[in-house]
Amino acid sequence: MLGCMIHGRGDLRVEELPVPEPGPGQALVAVRYGGVCGSDLHYWKHGGVGDFRLREPMLLGHEVVGTVLGYGTPSPAGAGAGPVPGTAVAVHPATPCGACPECVRGRRNICRDTRYLGSAARFPHVQGGFAAQVVVAADQLRPLPAGLEPRRAALAEPLSVALHAVHRAGDVAGRHVLVTGAGPIGCLVVAAARAAGASRVTVTDLLPAALAYARAAGADTVVRADDPDDPGWPAEADVAVEASGVAAGLDTCLRLVRRGGVVVQLGMLPPGPSPFAGNLVVSREIDLRGAFRFDAEFDEALRLLASGPAFDALVSAVVPVREAESAFALAADRSRSCKVLLDFGAP
Amino acid sequence: MLGCMIHGRGDLRVEELPVPEPGPGQALVAVRYGGVCGSDLHYWKHGGVGDFRLREPMLLGHEVVGTVLGYGTPSPAGAGAGPVPGTAVAVHPATPCGACPECVRGRRNICRDTRYLGSAARFPHVQGGFAAQVVVAADQLRPLPAGLEPRRAALAEPLSVALHAVHRAGDVAGRHVLVTGAGPIGCLVVAAARAAGASRVTVTDLLPAALAYARAAGADTVVRADDPDDPGWPAEADVAVEASGVAAGLDTCLRLVRRGGVVVQLGMLPPGPSPFAGNLVVSREIDLRGAFRFDAEFDEALRLLASGPAFDALVSAVVPVREAESAFALAADRSRSCKVLLDFGAP
Amino acid sequence: MLGCMIHGRGDLRVEELPVPEPGPGQALVAVRYGGVCGSDLHYWKHGGVGDFRLREPMLLGHEVVGTVLGYGTPSPAGAGAGPVPGTAVAVHPATPCGACPECVRGRRNICRDTRYLGSAARFPHVQGGFAAQVVVAADQLRPLPAGLEPRRAALAEPLSVALHAVHRAGDVAGRHVLVTGAGPIGCLVVAAARAAGASRVTVTDLLPAALAYARAAGADTVVRADDPDDPGWPAEADVAVEASGVAAGLDTCLRLVRRGGVVVQLGMLPPGPSPFAGNLVVSREIDLRGAFRFDAEFDEALRLLASGPAFDALVSAVVPVREAESAFALAADRSRSCKVLLDFGAP
Amino acid sequence: MLGCMIHGRGDLRVEELPVPEPGPGQALVAVRYGGVCGSDLHYWKHGGVGDFRLREPMLLGHEVVGTVLGYGTPSPAGAGAGPVPGTAVAVHPATPCGACPECVRGRRNICRDTRYLGSAARFPHVQGGFAAQVVVAADQLRPLPAGLEPRRAALAEPLSVALHAVHRAGDVAGRHVLVTGAGPIGCLVVAAARAAGASRVTVTDLLPAALAYARAAGADTVVRADDPDDPGWPAEADVAVEASGVAAGLDTCLRLVRRGGVVVQLGMLPPGPSPFAGNLVVSREIDLRGAFRFDAEFDEALRLLASGPAFDALVSAVVPVREAESAFALAADRSRSCKVLLDFGAP
Repeated sequence: MLGCMIHGRGDLRVEELPVPEPGPGQALVAVRYGGVCGSDLHYWKHGGVGDFRLREPMLLGHEVVGTVLGYGTPSPAGAGAGPVPGTAVAVHPATPCGACPECVRGRRNICRDTRYLGSAARFPHVQGGFAAQVVVAADQLRPLPAGLEPRRAALAEPLSVALHAVHRAGDVAGRHVLVTGAGPIGCLVVAAARAAGASRVTVTDLLPAALAYARAAGADTVVRADDPDDPGWPAEADVAVEASGVAAGLDTCLRLVRRGGVVVQLGMLPPGPSPFAGNLVVSREIDLRGAFRFDAEFDEALRLLASGPAFDALVSAVVPVREAESAFALAADRSRSCKVLLDFGAP
Repeated sequence: MLGCMIHGRGDLRVEELPVPEPGPGQALVAVRYGGVCGSDLHYWKHGGVGDFRLREPMLLGHEVVGTVLGYGTPSPAGAGAGPVPGTAVAVHPATPCGACPECVRGRRNICRDTRYLGSAARFPHVQGGFAAQVVVAADQLRPLPAGLEPRRAALAEPLSVALHAVHRAGDVAGRHVLVTGAGPIGCLVVAAARAAGASRVTVTDLLPAALAYARAAGADTVVRADDPDDPGWPAEADVAVEASGVAAGLDTCLRLVRRGGVVVQLGMLPPGPSPFAGNLVVSREIDLRGAFRFDAEFDEALRLLASGPAFDALVSAVVPVREAESAFALAADRSRSCKVLLDFGAP
Repeated sequence: MLGCMIHGRGDLRVEELPVPEPGPGQALVAVRYGGVCGSDLHYWKHGGVGDFRLREPMLLGHEVVGTVLGYGTPSPAGAGAGPVPGTAVAVHPATPCGACPECVRGRRNICRDTRYLGSAARFPHVQGGFAAQVVVAADQLRPLPAGLEPRRAALAEPLSVALHAVHRAGDVAGRHVLVTGAGPIGCLVVAAARAAGASRVTVTDLLPAALAYARAAGADTVVRADDPDDPGWPAEADVAVEASGVAAGLDTCLRLVRRGGVVVQLGMLPPGPSPFAGNLVVSREIDLRGAFRFDAEFDEALRLLASGPAFDALVSAVVPVREAESAFALAADRSRSCKVLLDFGAP
Repeated sequence: MLGCMIHGRGDLRVEELPVPEPGPGQALVAVRYGGVCGSDLHYWKHGGVGDFRLREPMLLGHEVVGTVLGYGTPSPAGAGAGPVPGTAVAVHPATPCGACPECVRGRRNICRDTRYLGSAARFPHVQGGFAAQVVVAADQLRPLPAGLEPRRAALAEPLSVALHAVHRAGDVAGRHVLVTGAGPIGCLVVAAARAAGASRVTVTDLLPAALAYARAAGADTVVRADDPDDPGWPAEADVAVEASGVAAGLDTCLRLVRRGGVVVQLGMLPPGPSPFAGNLVVSREIDLRGAFRFDAEFDEALRLLASGPAFDALVSAVVPVREAESAFALAADRSRSCKVLLDFGAP
């Protein structure tokens, strides 16, 4: 069975791995597609993401769809069992603890003791889903809604992230939303803002190719971030979502959001301190709100995907797992890619 | 196959019904338990609930747990399939439309075009779950978490209602919460407020038996609503949740919540206009917030139930379906009952 | 010196009163105009307002503008002194205690121990401002902004009430606001909603004359409340403000606000319980928020009045104080009046 | 007449200036005290504050109390006149425009066209209040409440800033508030948080002298910011207010606030980009909210000062204006000073 392991910075290996065994309450899933995420690329290129560093080899991947193969004993007829073997499913990557103060307050997405597929946030790392077969808790499985093909469903995890970021901004109905960064997450933020009733969505990026994807996702206006004379620059926006993960993106958000407006920081910045126009936050009384992962938005994402064929345009390539390194390189080349999927070959 | 139909006010019949056939995307569930809800009792006693009146015979019941028997064709291996046949499940009773303004704003619980099990809110009525076998959409099924017995799991629906009401009150951590009405819903509001970190919970009811259940659910103080000298009456509360469904309960909430405080109206009042101390709302600037059903709280409820054996005390009786009418009478007798379950006999 | 006292239901007397003496920290004000408020009319017609009943004779009036005559000793040069004798001022009618829990939380308008001009909410009643000369605390005085004539400034108190009600509704920028009741308060709510950026304002009333005033205040659409076929009825509104003080107005708000919307109850209802469509609050999850008086909005009102000549149209009559009873009758005749001012003759 | 002008970085001059003439609607005030603010010190030491740079000589000072001398013509008897000549007053330093989008939304403190005493935020700069006599708009004057001495009243402006910052944090009643920086503003934030009902207030600073002032202001726990072993460090706080104006203070706030908590950035940071642990904002979903100046809090501050003799301890020195430079040096020496007042000699 093939899996896609990261051993350290730049050291990505497609390896033959033993098929895992599901324990009680666990499911074995034949993976069909795994979306390559910006954080997967960070582990590959930098050996870490945000403040989390790789400390041991880790199976990457947390955007996973596939088919249920079976369950560990005791029998799948028992409590906690997931869907029928053969069912097409998306895997919710998070398992919050349920007991910490954040979980009690209903903010499970920032659970201090969560387990998240393919993440080095805790040690030992939580192994990910980029393998032909993976074991997850049965209650992480979500059957695909009727009419949702696995290829589009592979966007459920990043779309959940985007939906959560828009929730963090408050009610955006009738508001002008600026999004910095037109990578896969930025494009999905566009779609999420649209679905929530934004009256106008403007997106910035350095790359025309990325901006074309943003337009496919529903942006009204796209702006070349490096062109101060681009006529698309808005005078100001009501809400800004930072989805580029670079300090310059946050700077753009802080400069263009209206006084008293809301900026949502969604992109994970490079490790270490970032340069920050903090005095704009003060003198314009901006609300800067972090957005991290998601919780129940995963179900919302599956519903939204089921109803939106426009999302198909955001899957820019599907690459067999054997060519994972070139898939990663392709995903990292934003002049050619939006979301790249690895194909693990499940039926 | 037996089912429990309401034909009109006072006309409850346990009838032999044909076994339904699941269509594509639907599941057939062998029902184990069905909780008798206040709204079921209202249909029985009054021929309606709130502003909704019975206009045709309706299978009652929306608090249902059971076991998956199978799925309609196309094959359960397809998209939208639910858990493995044999899995113990709770049934989420709501199917929001996903497209109306409320759904777009993320308030699916008040979807204007939802379908809700066993409800006369729309016509033809949506048939309910009080039958030995029922057909529901596959995506309404929720596998029970490990360790959660079906008997306790039957509380998932009313606990979801209670969790949603507490969410509507805002952050109750460290606050004193008053609950009027110690029926099953009121008791579950107590538990939900506790889980959300309330520093003190006071409950009022006319009946000592109901107050004993409230104490089992975690109330610090219980008060006889008809005894003005009861030493438990608080001077004021930060938040009040009306769970009695009578105007006197709302009156108590409005009189005891602090100026500028929040009252959540959860109980459905008798049909037609209710007497209302509206000038207290004005002169004390109270926020009176309706709470209706729930959405993602259903998953939260299942998790909370799995971790809380104290909930078992709230299931006061389990009655075979053949004796449904006496079960209803028992459920309506609050001097003897908290939650009464009908047993439909599934394994 | 003439003053306008209420001795009981229907017993309004213009009496010769002794000129009061300001004590330390107090000012003597020569009253120019006093606006007749709905609550003044309630004391006259019903002997009380809301849940507050007259228990002793009371000088009416809390919408007062005039000119500073002087100050009590110690000398006006000391701390707490108000504006220069001769200055045109409006009188803030409230003196909150500053120490109760509401004041600590910054909600001084619902201070449980406030003193409010011309109000029977406490006993002995707080005497009002309908007299040729009145004594108030020096810090209740607000100099009129440049360019604001006393006649228009007499609207400062009711406009403050309206501004506060709109604040209670949250951000109304870009929202459709429904106002039930086109009396003086309702008309000022229209102006306040406009000033806060509402995209559309619809007003209902029984009387064409009242609706004409609402239009002068900036309403886009006016609706005859008794005409179900009026083409102006909106399908729904985002926000509704109840300014009629009758249960039917609240009913209209609850029926027309969108699901999940906000209704602000501003009008004081008749004493005793009101009929209330509480189940709409539940099943549509409405937020019903009381609005009571105001605090810092008084300064905001003076600024808004200074910039808005359109407000002049809402002062429908100015009547000498000797004819107070006919002024009250005129004010109570909504087919002829919006705001009626008593003229106390100060220069 | 002496005034305290800043001509550039390090170039503070006490100069003989002509007595200004009030125009219509303006008042002439004999200044008694002027508090030296951190921003005054920034202009002196760095030639600017935050992103605002000195571009011409400017009279410093915006924390000013004094006595009304008279008014410009037309006569002070007209509209807009301030308090009686001889009245002790505090000067509200802001004059928002009233017409920009921020003013319309009720956020006058961030008016994009405001005039603020002694600020280089606009050009020509708005001259300040550090002179023996100053001219301000009559409606900027606030009579001191009874019992409030001018010396303590000189804290009204910085206390308003502190109150506003606490408002920005939301309801802090019953919450643990961390304050980084025990300069005058930090100490006043302590007092403001206490007044708003915080259950615990912890303050950090490098200097024991500053921490002693914080304790006088009501802090429960004081922590040496440079001592990682100080036993006072909390595990976490519900709310943090950054009042040190250095990036390390913000870093402390971000590291110690609980996940999902609120950090208010109040201190103006050094000009240019600051290092920023932005990934904590993301991964812990922190709300970082700017706080800038204040609006109606000025009246609240005067009331709070009138009731609180404890504030007296925060005025650490009163220095004649002729010795302004040594007063500035003293104010800048936080090992010896909290708030330093300049004495302009008004009676």
